[in-house]
Amino acid sequence: MSSVLYDHIKQFIPTAQIPYEDIDTCFDRLGLAKKETLIEAGEKCDKAYFVEKGCLHAYFIDDNGVEKTVQFAIEKWWITDFLAFRYQNKTDFYIQAVEVSEVLYITRNKLEELFARHPEMEGYFRQVYEIGYGAAIMRIKYIFNYSKEEIFFHFANQFPEFVNRVPQYLLATYLGLTPEYLSKLRGRKFS
Amino acid sequence: MSSVLYDHIKQFIPTAQIPYEDIDTCFDRLGLAKKETLIEAGEKCDKAYFVEKGCLHAYFIDDNGVEKTVQFAIEKWWITDFLAFRYQNKTDFYIQAVEVSEVLYITRNKLEELFARHPEMEGYFRQVYEIGYGAAIMRIKYIFNYSKEEIFFHFANQFPEFVNRVPQYLLATYLGLTPEYLSKLRGRKFS
Repeated sequence: MSSVLYDHIKQFIPTAQIPYEDIDTCFDRLGLAKKETLIEAGEKCDKAYFVEKGCLHAYFIDDNGVEKTVQFAIEKWWITDFLAFRYQNKTDFYIQAVEVSEVLYITRNKLEELFARHPEMEGYFRQVYEIGYGAAIMRIKYIFNYSKEEIFFHFANQFPEFVNRVPQYLLATYLGLTPEYLSKLRGRKFS
Repeated sequence: MSSVLYDHIKQFIPTAQIPYEDIDTCFDRLGLAKKETLIEAGEKCDKAYFVEKGCLHAYFIDDNGVEKTVQFAIEKWWITDFLAFRYQNKTDFYIQAVEVSEVLYITRNKLEELFARHPEMEGYFRQVYEIGYGAAIMRIKYIFNYSKEEIFFHFANQFPEFVNRVPQYLLATYLGLTPEYLSKLRGRKFS
């Protein structure tokens, strides 16, 4: 573990006194090449991933064979199929590196052990999930409310670094656009 | 508080020994008439609601003046604008009773006090949010993957009691359908 995760934990639960080593020992690190896949649809999902560096996305392949991104994660974000991870079920999603990345991962069993040994960690994940849950509902609102063009401009205003960083075809599926249409919008925004 | 919430808490954190009164004192109860509104868009959202009986929904009014439901909550579900509740911000949503309902609510301040006094409660909310977050991402997958018809049949198979219970026009906005189209689909399913 580097200090990125430890600092993130301290930011959310500043009064907890958990030794660095007690957390470190629960995690493993993986370096990922661009497009390297962590888990594929149909596999049992028993790990959650914390992005130390880089960018990952979770996608599924729709009935027409098109990849559709449902989550992005950049530095200090968690990514997994949270339901499958909870129940250690098979996942419907692929999780893949968008760029060269470094992740820490924890298995469900080790997470449960960590909760048992350091119950303060419940407070960290309660907050991570609280924000993720609230943001996911807000995203459903955007999908329902805005035209495809408005979704893009809203997203571009909120997360400008994302728009410059993530390959266009991935961003397009995340926003429910075709790459061609997104390209037209980007031209308009950044010209 | 009735025992509905207490039993729900014990189900998620069975080893915790929190006296009933310590939880009860943090909550207030509200009886709601059908269509009674708990909070309106533009108001500060500092409460989370646990449905003891009945059914609530959270919706926003889109740019065309149409109500669009982003969450439903039946018995033993929590409902609020989770991001606004965390930060005690103004909400974009209305929360309203779909039918005669009884809810328990807790303010953000009382929730933080409860966490301070009984840190085991972090584990309860960590799990409530974990499931909610995972389910919200799964819902985004459905919205992206399925035709409107498929979304309805999937939803009807997973939550048959919902389809029979919730007024058609609400279910329609939740699924992104027009009430007329939904009516056609329901006829097909239940005939």
